[in-house]
Amino acid sequence: MKTETFSKINKVIHEKGRMAIMSALAANPEMSFRELKESLGMTDGNVSVHIRTLQQAGYVIVSKTFVNNRPHTSYRMTDQGLQAFNEYIDLLEEVVRLNRDNR
Amino acid sequence: MKTETFSKINKVIHEKGRMAIMSALAANPEMSFRELKESLGMTDGNVSVHIRTLQQAGYVIVSKTFVNNRPHTSYRMTDQGLQAFNEYIDLLEEVVRLNRDNR
Repeated sequence: MKTETFSKINKVIHEKGRMAIMSALAANPEMSFRELKESLGMTDGNVSVHIRTLQQAGYVIVSKTFVNNRPHTSYRMTDQGLQAFNEYIDLLEEVVRLNRDNR
Repeated sequence: MKTETFSKINKVIHEKGRMAIMSALAANPEMSFRELKESLGMTDGNVSVHIRTLQQAGYVIVSKTFVNNRPHTSYRMTDQGLQAFNEYIDLLEEVVRLNRDNR
């Protein structure tokens, strides 16, 4: 059992709501609050809380602009976020492989 | 984005300490407290708390016996635990695949 694999798992990304947000932002260069919320089927509160955690970790950048004179908030993954997410996905792959090998 | 994948993730198993314990018990038919603790590099407290959660979920069975007149506690995964763990690993594989496809 390679226990380092488990201890290296990034707790910020591992929570399943944040895992979903990071996956969405890895696939789409920019998403609005509404796009995130609707595509992931989350509540306003859940999106807000998770985005704040991801922003504090330096993984997501929030941009506030105006579209047709109305405020528009959008989210992008930072380079640091993408790197952390790629490492996380590599670890998940290792966990899957470890368990497939054990059967 | 297949958001069902994320919402189906089993929270009991997803916590990384419990994921490590379940992986260890999937690979070894029976483990003692000490074996679990030492192979995973966890504290007594962590192993106890996680095992209790896994036991309450019906995923792990605790057996108390005597070996050389000394009490011996060992842990096994239940059929229900194995099924839940296999489903969990399948979902992780799907998360990895979704993210690989997105690149």
